[in-house]
Parts: sequence; C-alpha cells; structure tokens
Amino acid sequence: MVEATLGKATPLAAEELHKIHAYWRAANYLSVGQIYLLDNPLLREPLKLEHVKPRLLGHWGTTPGLNFIYVHLNRAIKAQDLNMIYIAGPGHGGPGLVANTYLEGTYSEFYPNIAQDVEGMKQLFKQFSFPGGIPSHVAPETPGSIHEGGELGYALVHGYGAVFDNPDLIVACVVGDGEAETGALATSWHSNKFLNPIHDGAVLPILHLNGYKIANPTVLARLSREELESLFVGYGYKPYFVEGSDPETMHQLMAETLDRVIAEIKSIQREARVHHNSHRPQWPMIVLRSPKGWTGPKEVDGKKTEDYWRSHQVPLANMARQPDHVRLLEEWMKSYKPEELFDENGTFVAELAELAPTGDRRMGANPHANGGLLLKDLRMPDFRDYAVEITKAGTTIAEATRVAGRFLRDVMRLNADTRNFRIMGPDETASNRIDAVLEATDRMWNAEILPEDEHISPDGRVMEVLSENMCQGWLEGYLLTGRHGFFSCYEAFIHIIDSMFNQHAKWLKTTRHIPWRRPIASLNYLLTSHVWRQDHNGFSHQDPGFIDHVLNKKAEIVRVYLPPDANTLLSVTDHCLRSRHYVNVIIAGKQPALQYLDMDAAIKHCTKGIGIWEWASNDRGSEPDVVMACAGDVPTLETLAAVDLLRENFPELKVRVVNVVDLMTLQPETEHSHGLSDKDFDSIFTTDKPIIFAFHGYPWLIHRLTYRRTNHKNLHVRGYKEEGTTTTPFDMVVLNDLDRFHLAIDVIERIPKIYYTAAYVKQMLYDKLIDHKHYINKYGEDMPEILNWKWRYYGSDGDQTPLQHSGTDTNPSQEGAEGTATRG
Amino acid sequence: MVEATLGKATPLAAEELHKIHAYWRAANYLSVGQIYLLDNPLLREPLKLEHVKPRLLGHWGTTPGLNFIYVHLNRAIKAQDLNMIYIAGPGHGGPGLVANTYLEGTYSEFYPNIAQDVEGMKQLFKQFSFPGGIPSHVAPETPGSIHEGGELGYALVHGYGAVFDNPDLIVACVVGDGEAETGALATSWHSNKFLNPIHDGAVLPILHLNGYKIANPTVLARLSREELESLFVGYGYKPYFVEGSDPETMHQLMAETLDRVIAEIKSIQREARVHHNSHRPQWPMIVLRSPKGWTGPKEVDGKKTEDYWRSHQVPLANMARQPDHVRLLEEWMKSYKPEELFDENGTFVAELAELAPTGDRRMGANPHANGGLLLKDLRMPDFRDYAVEITKAGTTIAEATRVAGRFLRDVMRLNADTRNFRIMGPDETASNRIDAVLEATDRMWNAEILPEDEHISPDGRVMEVLSENMCQGWLEGYLLTGRHGFFSCYEAFIHIIDSMFNQHAKWLKTTRHIPWRRPIASLNYLLTSHVWRQDHNGFSHQDPGFIDHVLNKKAEIVRVYLPPDANTLLSVTDHCLRSRHYVNVIIAGKQPALQYLDMDAAIKHCTKGIGIWEWASNDRGSEPDVVMACAGDVPTLETLAAVDLLRENFPELKVRVVNVVDLMTLQPETEHSHGLSDKDFDSIFTTDKPIIFAFHGYPWLIHRLTYRRTNHKNLHVRGYKEEGTTTTPFDMVVLNDLDRFHLAIDVIERIPKIYYTAAYVKQMLYDKLIDHKHYINKYGEDMPEILNWKWRYYGSDGDQTPLQHSGTDTNPSQEGAEGTATRG
Repeated sequence: MVEATLGKATPLAAEELHKIHAYWRAANYLSVGQIYLLDNPLLREPLKLEHVKPRLLGHWGTTPGLNFIYVHLNRAIKAQDLNMIYIAGPGHGGPGLVANTYLEGTYSEFYPNIAQDVEGMKQLFKQFSFPGGIPSHVAPETPGSIHEGGELGYALVHGYGAVFDNPDLIVACVVGDGEAETGALATSWHSNKFLNPIHDGAVLPILHLNGYKIANPTVLARLSREELESLFVGYGYKPYFVEGSDPETMHQLMAETLDRVIAEIKSIQREARVHHNSHRPQWPMIVLRSPKGWTGPKEVDGKKTEDYWRSHQVPLANMARQPDHVRLLEEWMKSYKPEELFDENGTFVAELAELAPTGDRRMGANPHANGGLLLKDLRMPDFRDYAVEITKAGTTIAEATRVAGRFLRDVMRLNADTRNFRIMGPDETASNRIDAVLEATDRMWNAEILPEDEHISPDGRVMEVLSENMCQGWLEGYLLTGRHGFFSCYEAFIHIIDSMFNQHAKWLKTTRHIPWRRPIASLNYLLTSHVWRQDHNGFSHQDPGFIDHVLNKKAEIVRVYLPPDANTLLSVTDHCLRSRHYVNVIIAGKQPALQYLDMDAAIKHCTKGIGIWEWASNDRGSEPDVVMACAGDVPTLETLAAVDLLRENFPELKVRVVNVVDLMTLQPETEHSHGLSDKDFDSIFTTDKPIIFAFHGYPWLIHRLTYRRTNHKNLHVRGYKEEGTTTTPFDMVVLNDLDRFHLAIDVIERIPKIYYTAAYVKQMLYDKLIDHKHYINKYGEDMPEILNWKWRYYGSDGDQTPLQHSGTDTNPSQEGAEGTATRG
Repeated sequence: MVEATLGKATPLAAEELHKIHAYWRAANYLSVGQIYLLDNPLLREPLKLEHVKPRLLGHWGTTPGLNFIYVHLNRAIKAQDLNMIYIAGPGHGGPGLVANTYLEGTYSEFYPNIAQDVEGMKQLFKQFSFPGGIPSHVAPETPGSIHEGGELGYALVHGYGAVFDNPDLIVACVVGDGEAETGALATSWHSNKFLNPIHDGAVLPILHLNGYKIANPTVLARLSREELESLFVGYGYKPYFVEGSDPETMHQLMAETLDRVIAEIKSIQREARVHHNSHRPQWPMIVLRSPKGWTGPKEVDGKKTEDYWRSHQVPLANMARQPDHVRLLEEWMKSYKPEELFDENGTFVAELAELAPTGDRRMGANPHANGGLLLKDLRMPDFRDYAVEITKAGTTIAEATRVAGRFLRDVMRLNADTRNFRIMGPDETASNRIDAVLEATDRMWNAEILPEDEHISPDGRVMEVLSENMCQGWLEGYLLTGRHGFFSCYEAFIHIIDSMFNQHAKWLKTTRHIPWRRPIASLNYLLTSHVWRQDHNGFSHQDPGFIDHVLNKKAEIVRVYLPPDANTLLSVTDHCLRSRHYVNVIIAGKQPALQYLDMDAAIKHCTKGIGIWEWASNDRGSEPDVVMACAGDVPTLETLAAVDLLRENFPELKVRVVNVVDLMTLQPETEHSHGLSDKDFDSIFTTDKPIIFAFHGYPWLIHRLTYRRTNHKNLHVRGYKEEGTTTTPFDMVVLNDLDRFHLAIDVIERIPKIYYTAAYVKQMLYDKLIDHKHYINKYGEDMPEILNWKWRYYGSDGDQTPLQHSGTDTNPSQEGAEGTATRG
C-alpha cells in the first residue's frame, strides 16, 4: 500500500493552494448555478424564487469531486505539458465538466453565446437541463468528452481504447464507486493486460469513492481498506489513497499524489521505451475518498445531506413550498464567494484563469476527444484481389469469413506503420475463421507468455478477451479518438452489448448534428458463427435478433448487410471499412458453403444492395409466377435448392430469384436513404405475385420493413423462430421450416395454376422431409442429396440447361474439430 | 494464502484413492464415448471408423476437470450427508455432467432408455449432440442442472441466487477461467456482500484454471500467484489452491482441500447461527489448476494437445482422412481401462457405484435443481385493497408504481416467514418509487453498515446492487430453485440483460417440454423510469426496445403488459406474481399521472387485456369515424387529450377509444394464446375506419403484431423514434410527434368529412405547438393548459356532458429532487 494519506507533504505553496482552492470554488459555484438558476447568476441581488428554475434537475453529488479532480489535473497538465483527456465515469456530473470547460475557455469557443460575462453565465445556467438547452449529463455536446454520462460501466474501457496506439496520451479516468459495481467495469480493470507501455499511452484510473449511489451505499466504499487495496493489487494496480474532507489538506494530498503518479507513469514509459521492455508494469491508480455532495448543504430539513446519498441529485428542492430553501441556496452559493472569482463583467478573474492549460492542452480542446479531427483514411488493398474464382454459380465451395480474413490481414499489414487499425474479438478470431489476420500481427497479450504460446505478444493488434463488453468498449474508445476497427463476434452473444450499442448509436446520432464534432470511423461488426450453424453448441447459441435491435436506432446511422457468399462479403467489408459515422452490421457464415457471384457480379450486386439473380431465374421475357426472395447465406442456399425442386417438377413455372444484401433497401426511401423507391420495389417484387421470402433472422423483421409496400399482402416470410438445438446443418433449417421443401411447398400452395396438379409433388416433398429425419437419426448427418446439392441450371436470356445432378456421388465428409467441409 | 499445495496430506487411504480414481476414469471414459462413439461402446471389438460418429462435436477440454470435481464432491456429500448441487460454469463440458448423472443412476431414472447396460451406454453415446438426441452442453435436459451451458458468465450469480434462503444448501460452483473474464462474472464475486450466513446457504466457488479458452490463454491463469491471491482476497474470499497434474497427488489434495473448506463453511454457519452473528465472513473458495484436456492425448499430429487450447473441442478429428486417429482414440479410451469399470452387462461395477450418494443427495436428483418441485404459492394480499379511489376518470392524480409498491410491501410481509420472495433492483427501488417495500423489509447488505444508514441490513429481502446482470442472475437462480421474485428496473437499461433474458427464455421454453421438469415461478419485470419521463437524465436513458427483444422469443413463455394507471398496474402485478413459467414484462410510469379506471373497471379491463373505453368514446349506437387506440400510460394520456381536442372542435365526430394493456392481444390467436380472434379484432378496430394508435414503444412493433389484421391498411402508429433528450414531460412527446396535437391532426387528415372544413382547427393545433415551444424555452416547464389538463366528458350511453375545463387555474408545481407532482 502506498500511504499518500500521511498528510505531511505540502507541495503547494500558500498562494498556489489559495488559487487552486479558488478555482475549485468557481467550478463548484458554476455547477450549482447550472442546476438552480434561471437568472441573477452572480447573486448581485438577493436571490428570489423567480430566479430559480421551476424544475430542478441534475446531479450534484458527484460534481464537486469531479471538479476537484479537474482542477488538479489542470495543474499537472500545465506544470508538465501533459497530453491528457478526462473521462467522467459518473457522467451525470455534467455540470462539473461544463463548468470547467467554461472556466478554461473552451466552452465559449465552441458556443459563443455562452460568453465569459454576466449574460453568458446567465445563459450557461439557464441552458442546463432546460428545454432548448443541453443535457444534464456529460454528453456529446460537452467539449472534451468521448464518454456519454448515460449507462454506467464503460469509463475504463473507453479510456483504454483511447490510449491504445496513442503513446503520449494520458486518460485521467474517473470511475464512480456506483459504476464500479457493474459487470463491464468490474472486468475492465484487467485491460492493463492488453496495454503495451511502449506504443500505447497510459490510463490513470481515479476511483472516486464518494460512498453512495442513488439511495444506497456502494460496495467498494464499504470494504475494509485491506480488502480494497488487495482487490486493486490483484487487478494489477498500485493504489494511492487520497482520503478526507478538509479542502486544504485534500488539495495538498491530491497535488502530491498526482505529481507522484504522473512521475511514475513517465518513469514506466521511459523505462519501457528506452529499454524496449514491454513487460506489464504495475500501473499507479488513485483512490479518492471524498464526501458525496462535498461543500454542499450539510443538512437539509434536519436530514444529513453532505456525505450522504441525499446529495445524489438536487439536495435542496421544493423551493416554492419551502421558501427557506431559497435562502439556503443563496447561502450555499455565496459560500463559494463569487465576488472573489468573477470580475465586474462576470469574467473569471485572470489570476485564476491562468491556472488552466492553454490551447489544445486544455482538456476541453484536446483533439483526441474529437477524434474525427485526427481521423485518417485507412490504406486499403484492392478487395478484388481476394476474390474466390467462380466459373459456375452454386458449384464452388468456400468459407466466406476465411476469405474475408485474408483481406483483413492485408488491411492490417498496410496500416501496420500508422498503427490505426485494430481487430476485436471475444476469443473468437480463430473460431470465426478470420485468423489469417494472425499472419500479419499477433493477439495483444501482456500477461505471462509461455514458450508454447502462438500468435500472442505485447505488440499484437488483435484484441481478444472473453468479454464482449470489453471488446465493444475498447473499440468505441479507439474509434472515438480517431482510429479504425473491426469487431467479429458470435451472432447470438452480440446481445451482451445491446445496451452499449444503444449508447454508441445515440452518440453517433447526436454528434452528427453538432457542427464542431467531426465524423469518426464506423463501428463495424462481423457477426458469424451464426444461428444456422451452431454445430458444436446449440439452442443457447442461436439468436439472430441483433438486427432487430439495431434497426430500432436512427436510420441515418445504421446499416445491415447479409452477403450471401465470399465475394459479396469482400465487397461489403471494403465498403464498411471506408464508411464514416455508421454502425455497420455484417452477417456472414464461416462454414464451407456454395459460392454464387464472381467478383464483378458481386460488386454490382452489393452496390445495388438488392437484385434479381438472372442466372437463377427463368422469368426473363415474361411475368414471373412467383418471386423467391432471400437474405442471408443459408436462406439463399435453401431458396436456390427450392428453385431447383420447382424447376425440376414444374418446368413451365416462371420463378424470379431476388437476393437482398443490404437489408435497408427493403424499407421505404422515406425511412432510410438506402430504401428502394416504391416503383423500383414494385418492379422487383411485382405488385401482385406471391413472394416467398427466406430470411436469416426473425421473419417479422421483413414484415416490419415492408408493410407499406404495394405487394406486402402477398409476402410470405420464413425465418428463424426459436426452434433449434444441436443437430445437423440441414436439420436446423428443417426445424424452423425454412428448408427447401417447405419453400417449394409454399410456392405450390400459392399458385393456382400448379396447385391442383401438384398433389404428387407435394407429397413427394413431404416424404423427403420424413426420409431426412430418419436418415439423420440413423447416420447423424444430412442425406447425401442435401449435403452435396449444387446448382445446375445455366444459360442466358431465360434459356435453361439442366446439368447432370452431380450431388450424390460424393461421400459425406467427416467433420472434425475444426468443422471444415460439411457441404461439398 | 492457504497452501493446500504442500502435497503432504494423504486423507485418502490407498483403496479409497484407487476407487475414486477409477470412478473418475469411468466418468472420463463415458465423456469421450459420448463425443466419439456411435457403437462398440465398451470397445469389446477393435475400434473401426464405422463406430465413430461422422460429425464430431462437443468440448473435451473442460470435461475431465468437471468430472474430477464431481467425483470429489460425491465423496464429500456421502461422507457428510451434504445437501449440494453442482453448477458447471463451463457448461459446454456437457458430457461430464451427463456421464456423472449416468454413473450415479439419476440419468437412467429420468431417461429409462438410457439404461445402465451395454445397450443403454450405446444410446448414451449416440444421443450426445446427435439428431434426435441431447445438446452438447449442460442443458435443461441434464438432471441436476439449473444452469445452461450457453452464454458464459452467470455461474456465480446463479449459485448465489440458489442459496439465498436455503440455509442448508451448498452450491458447488465451478467457474471457468474463460468465463471469469466476462463482466457479469467479474462483478458477481461481490455477491458475498449480499449473503447472510444465518439464513442463506453457501456457495463454494471452484475457479477452474485450465489455462485456455477456445484459442487463447486465460487472463487469470497468467497472473502471478500473488496477484491472483490478492484479487480473491480483495473480493472477500479465502482461496485454497489445488494445483497439479499427477492424478494421485491431485486426488489427495482435492480431498483434503474439500474436507477443509466444507469444515470451514460449516464452522462459519455454526458460528453465525449459534451466536446470531450475521457478520460477513471470509468464505473459502478453491482454485483448481489442472491441465486442459487432462488425461486426453498429449499430442496429436505432433502438436501439443493436453494442457493446451487444442483440447478445447475435439482433440482427435478427421477420422476418415487420418485412420491413425481411430487407433489413437481407441488407445485413449482404453487408457481408462473400461474392463475394470463396467461389468459384463455394461453396468458400472457395484464397488465403484457405491461411492456416489444415494436418493436425493445425488446431485442429479437434488430437488433444488428442479425448483418447480419445491415451489409453493405466495400468500397474497387482496390487490383490490390498494386501489386508488376514482370517482371521475381522468381527474385524480397518483403515482402508479408507488401504489404498486404498497401491494408489494404486503406481499413481502405475508411471505416473510416462508422466506420465498425477494425483490431485485439496481439501486432503483426508491427511484422507481416502490420503496414502500422498505416498510416491510430492508435492503440486503452485508458489507459495512454505518450508523446513518437507513433500511439496510443483513436480513433485508430487497436486493440492490448497481449491476443489472447480478440482479437478473440472482433472480434466475432464486426462481430456478423454486421461489418467487420481482425485478424493477429503469426501462432503458434493462437491455444490459438482453442476452441473459435470452438464455432464461430458452431455458423456460425447453423445460416446458421436458416432462420431469416442473414449472417454476415467472420472472417478473417492472420497467419504469421509462422512456417518456427521464427528467433528471435524458437521451441516453431513453429506449423502449426491450419489448421488441422479448417478443422475439416463443409466444408460449412471454407476456407484455402496459397498464395505463395505478389500478390496472395492481391487477396486472397480482396476475404476474401468481403466474408460472413465463417472463412477464410490465411497463408503468412512476410519475404523478392521471388515473382512469376504478378497481372494478381495472380488473375487467386487465382480464380482457384490451377494451373500448366507453366513457371516453362517443360512438355508442353508431359506427365510429375513427378508432383512437393507445398502449402505455403517456400515450393513453395524449390520446385522451387528443380526443378532448377533437370533441371540442368536431362535436359530431364519432370517436372510439381503445386501450391495450396486454400487448399480446393484438397478435393473431394463431401466434399467441392471448391473441384476439380476427372477428373480435375487427369488432374493436373495425374493418375500414382509420386507426390512430399511440404506442409506448417503437411504432413498428404494432405493425409487426397486426400486419395480418383486416384493417391493418388503415392503421397509423405513433411511438418513440429516437428523438429525445432532457426536457419537460410534454416536450418529450412533442419531440416524438406523439403529442395530442399531432394525434388530433392525424384524425383530421384521415377523415374526409371533416378534413375539408378543418383548416382553421388544424392551424390552431399547429399554433399551439409553436406556443408550447416558446413557452417551455422561456419558462422551462409545460404550458399550464398542458400541465393541468384533465378529462372532462362524462355520462353514459353516448351522452356527453362537457364539464368546466378546470385546468388553467392551478399554479404549475415546483418539481424537486424527488420529482413529485408534475401534473396536477
């Protein structure tokens, strides 16, 4: 344990101490003013009820502590010319960050209406948590922030994400003791095992023990000192304790401790960089134990308020009903002596203002907190060079993600020098078969490494930890500070970060409309090991609902792609890596599967996002009898196989095959910029013919996207419906009635001209399903005619040439641990 | 640190050691057999390719460790008559749990086809991860399990949930070192601060360090011993280390350590119970470091396999292509000497079988792992006694959740003795205004308690921690072991447990169809502090999408209720607490709001789930011109206010008001058992009149539920659309165009008979919106006519009596920290 609590050290001379304290008083004054005042900002006339906001909103409790830290960080930055940003884990302490950026001048630079004078201060106060104003939390509107004060738990992962590949940056990361109870935060202390002191910067965690949450004590504040210290030593940190409530003592302690930990960080970095020693050090951290609502009312209506949970939001309320609260508020605000802090014009006095750093060193102006300013394009290989060669559609076998992995490998290589691209994955990079990237770099690992370890090193740029929360949070922090990334994940478990996605999507949506915020790189998800192929796992690993979740967010920032094969996946991946300020969701399989489009066709198909597959259709020159639509790799396969069954049994039937890569094309153009016009939609889907739609996800999503379309009444969707477990690949689609037989039967039932002659065919199709069930129960794998099915119609301009059915002569393959080669 | 690794202790005599080792070999043999064999289960003929499954699925790596633990727990249970269940955090080690329950006899009792003979063993092997068989993970089908081996991270919270109020139960909880990296698991170690040694049982965490995940080392396995120990001491545990690979030594170590930790648990409990001392002790835990894939092939194809990540799934694969793998498999399996373990009939030899406990002490037969067996009804107060008195609909003000809190308080009181009801909340019980429950009990807290603390004690039955994951996990564990519970949460942040909900919903869906699994109590969510009233917070706290997520799961296990006021909330809450085997989602506001239905009307309305509000309609005796539908408290208010505007301006207009409490009524009856028949739906919503639907959540959800209904083409839905921030209550609905003015304009635009005469009214409505914007920007609260609006039409049989508009004479209320009284 490091005893910073000795209280003997006095690094601050009397005048500096006095000024630092005055600066803190100013920040606290402005914070209280924001929460309470509509007018009379400097209390130059007696405070009256009409000066007070009618609705009192916001959170005071954490704010004085956040201000205390800010003021001391300013001192350290200025003294040592540090490149530092501030992450406020307790982001509901919004008034503090706004106050401090106002005092340092950045706020007025971004928002000239909030000037450094009496009128500006009045506006500063009024706008807080007020209609037409700013949110009560640290928010995208707050200069210097990369961290929304919404859902708690992501301060540390954002901090680590920000310092990766930013060797000179220090993130001062305030972790609230409430937030520290969340799962995401509890595991994210381990981020230090994924940081390299040579080429990454440093996170300085400041655990702010102010003791209470909304209405409860916090767990960490109620541990013994021994347990608390042991916990953080166990997490790999060297904790310094700054504890107390007397401002003078606390200023000295905090100044001394900050000097010491910054020196330690610099010494660690110097040691690592001079000696090229990336060994994981014991990084310092600060535990700041200060009263909740520090310097606020000690008691209100006879009830303990300072240093208690009653300080959490607004300690004095009900002003209209309790007029003495107005008096108490005035006393409280005057206790900060505003007359010493602001001059006649309402401007912060110069001798205090000069305590703040200047220019970009101000934490509100640091460009790392407006990452778009620093964002550079990725150097990109030509994705066409990775194409799978396709001579005949639907006959070649490839693993789509493995192909994409080679492309990503070279993206990694080309940007190795610039160090601005990382890949995240919850221990799934190999499982998801994009492990070609490990030819270009290692997995980042800075815990112990054994001789037998492969592809792990402290220089790795693939970030793997079994926590989707950490992967997501690191990536967000990395993107928000102006870099690029890619996150591959099992489809089912991406729901773990549903709410983190929400927060990031809201950030993107809001920043898109803040002029000084520059666009950042998109957050790219590759969801694979998807619902239809969970061979080693089963029902618990099957959930395609992340798309539904994503589509609830604003259309302007979300994109969803379902490339049916490797070449389309390449095209989509290239597109997503180049895009800005979106969340891109790509869903693609990793298993060996039939390939359909050569690269030229793939590019055209992906550019349109939706298209008629002429080579699979036979309606050219006439109206189709039915539209067979599909989105997703397995549904595409089953649709084509159903078309095969139909064409074999009903040669006269005109079938149009439509494949959807970009799900957003289905929406009306008024809802999403990728949406097809009604005219285009009708021309593809007809206005009156049956549409059988085979979809990767829950079927109602397609209805939700298309219910306004002309031909919606004839749309029949098959998708996933929570019927699955571990079984054979084809059986999974059978369990969900998404198989070729059901799709073919759907068509038969909807087309009168064949329906009445189709009884034998229908019966044959049902018999196949029974055969299938008996076969797999006996042999444990799909029937050869399923396993080895290939597309067999070619030709142009509607000319069909049935080829020899080549499926049944191949032996079913053994599938091993790596799960290679099931179909084909 | 406790040095259990001295290796000197030899608690097992030679014969017992020999037998325990043999039992373990049997479990390992059966585990390998399940993964690999179709036939020749006892290897009585030379192993051939055709005996091996064509698709090799499952996970070997963790399995021998799980088996090792199981065997030793059996010894402890038998020796000391322990009441113990086993939670397998690494649940993908399914073969191990199946093997052990087979050896102890429970498996064959549940599944007589899997008998204890050669044919039974053949079936046991074949069924594993095979079509028509069982999942590869520990699953609902596995006797003794309350924990699906799907998504990782919830072993400890399930364990703690199971032992709450089960003083004699010990949960042996195996935590995988991969799983330990997840957020949920990292914070759930702190569950020990929420456990009372007097009336709760004990969790014995066994951290299984087998070193590797799918393709990476694990963080905890690569810390120094000092850090690892420090971490767990910091978490509040006393770690005992069992480390090694030599079976003989490890058996002795494990036996000695288990004896010691069980003795310690008993001593802690005795001390606490005799002296009524509920002080938090330092509970023991075990760190078991053993090789991944222990006893499996050391090398395969020249590559390290045992004690390495290559053991994770199937160490020997590609049998057809590499015939020597068949030989290696045979050698591997024969290394367990099956001929010593199973007799001529294939039955486990009696002298080994007797090592297992008997009857309900077998972990596969413990009734706590089939909680429905133990489930007792709650004693329930009469919810009618808590009714808000309503004389005129839409004039009384109440806070719905505060009213429900009183009912919950008395549910808590009535079941205090039986100790089978708990309430969970992430520090939000007070904020969500159900804090009347604290009159009946405290918040559970077993960390330090200070004199000023209120309503926290080690006897509390309200579980509050700032982790939705822990709340959810504890509750799941509590319900799965046969008790009842209630979880109140901010609506936006319930997404944190989206994926935990998925896993639990899948568990419910599957167990519903397993005859020996008994139904358990429903998982009841009260989502409040909802999207429409985030006064202290803002955009980051606004997301009504949990409903969308829930509705993706099987209809048979999900229910969603949107009671519009306090009495309907009471009725719904009562219903949910009595229900079985569902997930019930209740969404209700906490803010002061208008009340509509007296208790009698509320009961009828909730029983139907949907209904025409005759008192608000004026179409009786004629066809309506428009149906105004609503679901959710704020949408209901805005709908009624819109009706008021319409009736004031178009007295001849026939408006039907429909309120939806049970969202499932909207679905076709073929999709959900609560769904209205098409006839009933048409009779309420008409077949051709415009429907204006004001909805609490994302609008497309209503379309998704109703797209098959006759009158869907005339349905216009307004809901939340990601346009919000902190502002005034009414402004929130304006931002989303869900306000009364837009709703009234919607009607005007859809009814030709008024449209062409309505230009002045429409302009007036738009003007009101502009007035509103200017008013709130100036005063910071809603216009009095909005703030104080009340319903004013009464009468019966379609007779309308406009009352005096009483709204404008009340002063807008001050809203304080507690946010009371905004409307009224």
